[in-house]
Amino acid sequence: MHDRLAQGAARVQSHLDQVLSPFGDGHVALGMRYATRGGKRIRAFLVLESARLHGVSESSALWPACAIEALHAYSLVHDDLPAMDNDDMRRGQPTVHVKWDEATAILVGDALQSLAFELVSHPEGAASGETRANLALTLARAAGGQGMVLGQALDIAAETAPTPLTLEAITDLQAGKTGALIEWSATSGAVMAGADPTPLQTYAKALGLAFQIQDDVIDVTGDATAAGKAVGKDAAAGKATFVSLLGLVEAKRRAEILVEQACEAISCYGGDADTLQQVARFVISRQT
Amino acid sequence: MHDRLAQGAARVQSHLDQVLSPFGDGHVALGMRYATRGGKRIRAFLVLESARLHGVSESSALWPACAIEALHAYSLVHDDLPAMDNDDMRRGQPTVHVKWDEATAILVGDALQSLAFELVSHPEGAASGETRANLALTLARAAGGQGMVLGQALDIAAETAPTPLTLEAITDLQAGKTGALIEWSATSGAVMAGADPTPLQTYAKALGLAFQIQDDVIDVTGDATAAGKAVGKDAAAGKATFVSLLGLVEAKRRAEILVEQACEAISCYGGDADTLQQVARFVISRQT
Repeated sequence: MHDRLAQGAARVQSHLDQVLSPFGDGHVALGMRYATRGGKRIRAFLVLESARLHGVSESSALWPACAIEALHAYSLVHDDLPAMDNDDMRRGQPTVHVKWDEATAILVGDALQSLAFELVSHPEGAASGETRANLALTLARAAGGQGMVLGQALDIAAETAPTPLTLEAITDLQAGKTGALIEWSATSGAVMAGADPTPLQTYAKALGLAFQIQDDVIDVTGDATAAGKAVGKDAAAGKATFVSLLGLVEAKRRAEILVEQACEAISCYGGDADTLQQVARFVISRQT
Repeated sequence: MHDRLAQGAARVQSHLDQVLSPFGDGHVALGMRYATRGGKRIRAFLVLESARLHGVSESSALWPACAIEALHAYSLVHDDLPAMDNDDMRRGQPTVHVKWDEATAILVGDALQSLAFELVSHPEGAASGETRANLALTLARAAGGQGMVLGQALDIAAETAPTPLTLEAITDLQAGKTGALIEWSATSGAVMAGADPTPLQTYAKALGLAFQIQDDVIDVTGDATAAGKAVGKDAAAGKATFVSLLGLVEAKRRAEILVEQACEAISCYGGDADTLQQVARFVISRQT
């Protein structure tokens, strides 16, 4: 699985380099390239594996795979801004507003979101226009004010809320903040092939939640060098997390149960689902 | 023309209200509604008129018309941020980051950009998936790092450049900053109908430039109350504008020539083009 993940990440990087080459060498173009480098590429890999499961060619699937990475990169650049999470480091490097300035970071994020929709609707991607339009529509919904941005807004509101969030509220928040894009990624291959996305949807919902629980675990147990970003921020801010509400042992146990549910949901694909099942197990073993 | 513009604006507002109603009443949803209210709706009107010229139903055209207004609104919310143009007033009201805060304004802009792509790829919009995917693709290009965002970045860079921009450089900058979205709007009806977009493209290029020249004229001659936003900022900042480079009289003359070119370009549509020709003349007569 790690070899496949690394190979997928390399092809995604090469495709992103190619689509970004006509953007010139202004600050925004440089920032777009900078912000889309590195990372685990898990969302792109979910797209590529979902496509492979349904017989969709990798050359088609690379377009939505790069789209979701551009969208994810935009969200990180804006989340890191001083007015938002105010983070100086990301993926072991200075964040965009630290390396350039805030205006550049705002514009880089904005341009990366546009790029995501350019890539997902690109004629060399999914074969039919109907499918490309549908991928753009569902990506827009997963990203916007009823999906990722809503989750982010709830997360910010939680920081100043008089009482810590409940487990249910955090679960809802995370379903938007990280869950929506993970679900879009995992189901995209089924959508491209016109197949039933339900098994992958179930897989993705469980995986997304496990992913976030592990993020909370890393925030408590990880070290900043390995994680490539600040850790311990949530605890220092007194924010409710899965770990603060459940305790470390129970949070880890929940993540493990969710991963088993995720793996079970796609057992209908037989041996073809091995890689996605390994991805799910990797998600709760990672320390970064 | 003013009646039609007002009627079009009302239908666009009503459609936007409808699509935003399921977004709830959190800060981001409130900010999205706030930021999409008011304005002249010229871009939406170009979409509606372009559609009407090509026999595309208004119920279809309202989707891309609202998409371009959502996209335009996002760009204003982000442009007004302290790290960008740092404006407190917009359309006669406090800007989003003044009324709420910077984090909300960043998220509102982000969610409005997503909304634009949700609307443009919506199945009730253009009839074929191929067309919706194409509208999403071209909108993404017009908005992104080779279109509007590039123009905005060049504009910010110009503020700290050692020498003022040349006329050619300002023309290029404006082609991205305002021209790309105006061109997308004016050609969208032809794209929806599968007709040749060339006449409307020529119209839009001339109109977009005239539009920006008039903006520079208003910055010098207008008053803030009528304009609903700060004026005199460019002159105070010593920024090169069409007016500073050409003088007020010559700038106005150029805008008039451009409007005549715009009107001529769509004369092939005969009397059906009357309204778009009046829109062009309105653009250089407006004081806000």
